[in-house]
Amino acid sequence: MLRLVISGCNGAMGRTLNEVINDLEDVEIVAGIDRSIDAFENSYPVYDNPSKIEEECDCLIDFSNPSNLNGLLEYGVKNKVALVIATTGLNEEQEKSIEEASKHISIFKSSNTSLGVNVLINLVKQAANVLSESFDIEIIEKHHNKKVDAPSGTAFMIANAINEELDNKMEYNYGRVGTDAKRNEKEIGIHAVRGGTIPGEHTVIFAGMDEIIEVKHTAMSKKVFAQGAVRAAKYIANKENGLYCMDDLINNR
Amino acid sequence: MLRLVISGCNGAMGRTLNEVINDLEDVEIVAGIDRSIDAFENSYPVYDNPSKIEEECDCLIDFSNPSNLNGLLEYGVKNKVALVIATTGLNEEQEKSIEEASKHISIFKSSNTSLGVNVLINLVKQAANVLSESFDIEIIEKHHNKKVDAPSGTAFMIANAINEELDNKMEYNYGRVGTDAKRNEKEIGIHAVRGGTIPGEHTVIFAGMDEIIEVKHTAMSKKVFAQGAVRAAKYIANKENGLYCMDDLINNR
Amino acid sequence: MLRLVISGCNGAMGRTLNEVINDLEDVEIVAGIDRSIDAFENSYPVYDNPSKIEEECDCLIDFSNPSNLNGLLEYGVKNKVALVIATTGLNEEQEKSIEEASKHISIFKSSNTSLGVNVLINLVKQAANVLSESFDIEIIEKHHNKKVDAPSGTAFMIANAINEELDNKMEYNYGRVGTDAKRNEKEIGIHAVRGGTIPGEHTVIFAGMDEIIEVKHTAMSKKVFAQGAVRAAKYIANKENGLYCMDDLINNR
Amino acid sequence: MLRLVISGCNGAMGRTLNEVINDLEDVEIVAGIDRSIDAFENSYPVYDNPSKIEEECDCLIDFSNPSNLNGLLEYGVKNKVALVIATTGLNEEQEKSIEEASKHISIFKSSNTSLGVNVLINLVKQAANVLSESFDIEIIEKHHNKKVDAPSGTAFMIANAINEELDNKMEYNYGRVGTDAKRNEKEIGIHAVRGGTIPGEHTVIFAGMDEIIEVKHTAMSKKVFAQGAVRAAKYIANKENGLYCMDDLINNR
Repeated sequence: MLRLVISGCNGAMGRTLNEVINDLEDVEIVAGIDRSIDAFENSYPVYDNPSKIEEECDCLIDFSNPSNLNGLLEYGVKNKVALVIATTGLNEEQEKSIEEASKHISIFKSSNTSLGVNVLINLVKQAANVLSESFDIEIIEKHHNKKVDAPSGTAFMIANAINEELDNKMEYNYGRVGTDAKRNEKEIGIHAVRGGTIPGEHTVIFAGMDEIIEVKHTAMSKKVFAQGAVRAAKYIANKENGLYCMDDLINNR
Repeated sequence: MLRLVISGCNGAMGRTLNEVINDLEDVEIVAGIDRSIDAFENSYPVYDNPSKIEEECDCLIDFSNPSNLNGLLEYGVKNKVALVIATTGLNEEQEKSIEEASKHISIFKSSNTSLGVNVLINLVKQAANVLSESFDIEIIEKHHNKKVDAPSGTAFMIANAINEELDNKMEYNYGRVGTDAKRNEKEIGIHAVRGGTIPGEHTVIFAGMDEIIEVKHTAMSKKVFAQGAVRAAKYIANKENGLYCMDDLINNR
Repeated sequence: MLRLVISGCNGAMGRTLNEVINDLEDVEIVAGIDRSIDAFENSYPVYDNPSKIEEECDCLIDFSNPSNLNGLLEYGVKNKVALVIATTGLNEEQEKSIEEASKHISIFKSSNTSLGVNVLINLVKQAANVLSESFDIEIIEKHHNKKVDAPSGTAFMIANAINEELDNKMEYNYGRVGTDAKRNEKEIGIHAVRGGTIPGEHTVIFAGMDEIIEVKHTAMSKKVFAQGAVRAAKYIANKENGLYCMDDLINNR
Repeated sequence: MLRLVISGCNGAMGRTLNEVINDLEDVEIVAGIDRSIDAFENSYPVYDNPSKIEEECDCLIDFSNPSNLNGLLEYGVKNKVALVIATTGLNEEQEKSIEEASKHISIFKSSNTSLGVNVLINLVKQAANVLSESFDIEIIEKHHNKKVDAPSGTAFMIANAINEELDNKMEYNYGRVGTDAKRNEKEIGIHAVRGGTIPGEHTVIFAGMDEIIEVKHTAMSKKVFAQGAVRAAKYIANKENGLYCMDDLINNR
């Protein structure tokens, strides 16, 4: 049984995490941390500060925000508890604190804990390496009609990961129109489809001479981030001290 | 057995038509018309002018060009032969001549004889009528990397057909990018994907609250235009005098 | 403002209906009917019998079960309230009672109120008519891994609708395997994919010589049934007496 | 400039190879081997036996059949010419002869030289490793309506490659039907769609909780096998002696 503490347990992601863990038999939440300690009827004690936690645990998952980082690192190092840091927007100093703490405990860090998206990125990087010489690369992403940014952050994550593999020589094309709009060899087309309540799809297309390879990820809810975080917790619970990421998990390093 | 004359029999479409008809048991080519009367070893007599044709036939398919129109209309009216006019770029005067001739014989006219594309247009017009109130409409088309224009002419044919159904109140968006790129209710997104040797795909997406309808056409070669033309020939061979189009054929009027 | 009564308001579909209507500005629920009158904190009065309803309303939507039918028909006829009957499993006698009542009020009846699925059926029936001569028809449906029946009821609804158009001469093939498994012209292949939490997808494929047409419906939640029911309510609210179905709505008859 | 000899140059694959190489600037065919030495107007000398070849070359590609193997191995070893063996149906003794010869020259062996299919297999093996714990795996393949076997040989190649990664504990399910057809955790569903002239598609679906990963390969013609063979020839032309396969090429070993 893996015993977890959830930081940010009463936020949107914390509650999704709760829902996901309720369906698992080999994982339990022993305590939560949140500034709102009594907003919900939690089935475990909730504290407003990690220093108050008395329950024994194997791993802490943080879906709160960077301002809580120091307290969590202190708690982890002092109690030898592995940490999964799933917040976004960490500054340079905070990145360094995490690295320092990872000498004493095992820490997993990722700003996108969706297993699927990370597997997709892993696969398309390899495909790009083998195929880029004679295949054209295009990305289609689909999201709901309320999304304000385009293309999606994940589409850029994917495009940048591919571009790095190709010595950053590719340029992005966000829309073709006109009578003189022929494709350039050095471009990655990125197409942002918007409509209805589509939750999130990303497809990478490698189109060559008479053959096409496509790798597609579909997310149906934010549960995918919660599941990835639990998987990360299981992964680092017994790892030796150090800093780990989704790529380590996927490649089972 | 349907007996055909092919106008433009030694051009690219004429030869494709020949290939398609060779596989059919109920259709035969009895004569051809082409300025190159001996460029290929045709299995039927080829003339440089319709007036020279002596073979009996039921229908003539024209895949040549508008400059031959008058001679073909004369031939058709004089010999009571139905005509399938599949050329593009007819001017107003020529359109009128066709209409006039259709009082004496049956004539089928279409600048895109692909059955599939016309069926798709027919279907999405209906879907747009029922769904447009609460669904967003987007079009994705894919073609090979040598295509110079974007979006494709067929994508515009589809978008315009939908737009007409919606009182022409929609605007087209050819690419979304930026941090303030939220979808507008009155837009149809049109995305032109280019890569490798993809022959031609058109997908119309209707995305609503928690449900999506997609209608997709894939063309694998220009044979689809030849097949549509043969189907048109069969369709009008026994029709009464008049002017017919793909929509009549599809709706079996 | 359309005023609704919901029969079965505290069941799964009733609550989904409630959620959907809360987001609409031109529809309101004025009363509910349920055997559990106080199971939830409803924002409207809930009665255990339609005869007790005192609120004025334009239409009643029934997502309960056939045993309540007679009371609802009586209520509708007496108070001149239009009815949307969205239950399944009606017997012959009940069908007759509905027909009889529809002489006095307008009644909409459908065992699947998803607008999208009904639009798909409408489109593929037409496509089958035009294409069946030279295209092969296959259906792929995808659902979650807990579903016990295969293919889905909706896949059969679609296949049967197509088959009726083709004089019921088609046979269904549920899986091909072996070294002698060549396709028969008179078959519709139906493939039931199962995996994870896929909510529901149905794709009809028309594959011909060098071209393919596909029509696909994706449902992301049971909200689609609630939305279709509301749309039906709006549709019949001002119709003259008679019995209506999804096909009337789609074709705007 | 890579100088090639083509064994089986006047067979279907040989002629496709010829067509593909004609479009390349850095590869030329210097000689061919075929039992029909004058069936076509080849632009290079054609011999009925490799021992007669006098032209200098870097690599020989064999798309003939296993009965010619010994002569080709002798020719390769004697003249220090790298070999790409792309035939199918080699027996155990022949496999050993190849291994023995590969001590003296570099040999590339593959019964499916499509780069895309091999990349797909490589990707889905990795995906299966990471995802199999909580994702269901299904395969959909599509081919033309004349294909006699189902599922396709390539579908089995893919399924077997995945199964090996999962300790061969999976069973294949070729079609679900019935009211008690719930999915078993240990199965891979394989669905064979047949219709029209579809050239060949293979999609592997990994469906988990609220997310799906799909990897799809589309072949549009048999050119893809020719291209893969040329790529293999380039790959081994300067490799040290040894036996190589598509996996070495893809992983650039």
